Amino acid sequence: MDHERLLKQIEFIKEIDKAKQIFRQNVVIGTTRNENDAEHSWHLAVMALLLSEYSTTKNMDILKIVKMVLIHDLVEIYAGDTFCYDEKANEDKADRENKAAQKLFAILPEDQTKEMWGLWQEFEEGKTPEAKFATCLDRLQPIILNYNTKGYTWQRPEVNSAKVLKRNKPLKENTPLLWEYVNEVIEDSIQKGYLKQ
Amino acid sequence: MDHERLLKQIEFIKEIDKAKQIFRQNVVIGTTRNENDAEHSWHLAVMALLLSEYSTTKNMDILKIVKMVLIHDLVEIYAGDTFCYDEKANEDKADRENKAAQKLFAILPEDQTKEMWGLWQEFEEGKTPEAKFATCLDRLQPIILNYNTKGYTWQRPEVNSAKVLKRNKPLKENTPLLWEYVNEVIEDSIQKGYLKQ
Repeated sequence: MDHERLLKQIEFIKEIDKAKQIFRQNVVIGTTRNENDAEHSWHLAVMALLLSEYSTTKNMDILKIVKMVLIHDLVEIYAGDTFCYDEKANEDKADRENKAAQKLFAILPEDQTKEMWGLWQEFEEGKTPEAKFATCLDRLQPIILNYNTKGYTWQRPEVNSAKVLKRNKPLKENTPLLWEYVNEVIEDSIQKGYLKQ
Repeated sequence: MDHERLLKQIEFIKEIDKAKQIFRQNVVIGTTRNENDAEHSWHLAVMALLLSEYSTTKNMDILKIVKMVLIHDLVEIYAGDTFCYDEKANEDKADRENKAAQKLFAILPEDQTKEMWGLWQEFEEGKTPEAKFATCLDRLQPIILNYNTKGYTWQRPEVNSAKVLKRNKPLKENTPLLWEYVNEVIEDSIQKGYLKQ
C-alpha cells in the first residue's frame, strides 16, 4: 500500500486539531468560556445549511459555502485570532495569514493543497456569491452569541453600535432580511445596555 | 416582515450552541481537556471533504455526508454523550436519542425539521453509502485523537484492542485503505503501550 498520500491527509487532520485551541473574543452562551475556531466554524456550517434562502443570489453552491466556512479560520492556527475592532493588529493580518495558509495547506497532497488554498482565497476576496454569503454568516454568528451573553464582547471600551453596524454592512446587500434582524438586535441591545450607542 | 420563520431558525442556531458543552470521552491533542460535540462534528466535516476518495462507493453526495456529520450528535444536547464501550448506558441510548431529536428538530420551521430529522435518521440507520461513510469518519476520528494522546480513552480498564477493532469494522468493508491504516495504528499502539491487547 502506498501510504504517502493518506499519511499527508492524516497529518493535516491531526494538525488542524489545534483549531480547538485558538480562542475567539466571544464566549459560548451561558458560560464565560471563550469560543474556539473549531466550534465557530461548525456553527457557521450548520447556519449555511439553514439560512441560504436569505441570500439575494439564488442557486448558490451550498457545498462550496460549507467548505469555505469550515476552513476559513484555519490560518489562525499559526497566525492567531485578530480581534476585528483592533485596528493596529489588523494592519499586518493579511500578511500573517497568507504565510500561515501557505504553511498549513502544504501539508496536504498537492491537489488538495490547491483546493483548500483556492477556497480560502475565494473567502478572503469575498467576490463570489458564495464567499459573500459565507462572510454574512461569519458576521451574524457573533451577533447571535453576543446578544445572548449580554453583549460580552460589546462591553469593551472600543466597541459601539456604529462599529458593529459598519462591520455587518455585508448583510445589507447580500442578505437584507438578516440585516433587518441584526438591526433589531442592535437596537434592542442598546436598550438593554448590552451595547453602547 | 414576517419574522416567524427566521426567528425559529435563529432559536435553533442558539439552542445548538449547547453542543459546545457536551463533552466526549477523548481529549484534544496536546491537552487533557475533553473534546466537545461541536469540535468533533467540525473535525468530521473537514475529514469528509478530504477522505471521500477512500470509499468503495464512488460519486457519493458529499454535501449530504457533510450535513450528516455536522448534525449527527446534536441529539446529545438533551440525551448526553454515551461512551461507546459502556454496555449498560447503550441499552436505552436509541430511545433517549429519538426523544431528543424530536424535541430539538421541532424548533425549526416544518420543512427544515423534516430535512434534519431525515438526515439524522439516515445516519443512524447507516444503510446508504453516505451514511456508511459518515460512520467510518465517526470511527476514524477518535482513533486519530487517541493515537496522538497516548491512548487517552484506551487506558480505561474496559477497553482493549479487540473491542476497538470490532467497533471499527465498518471501515473494513466501506473504506478498506482506512481500515488498513487503523489496523497499523492499533498494532503500533499496542507496541507503545497505548492500548491493551
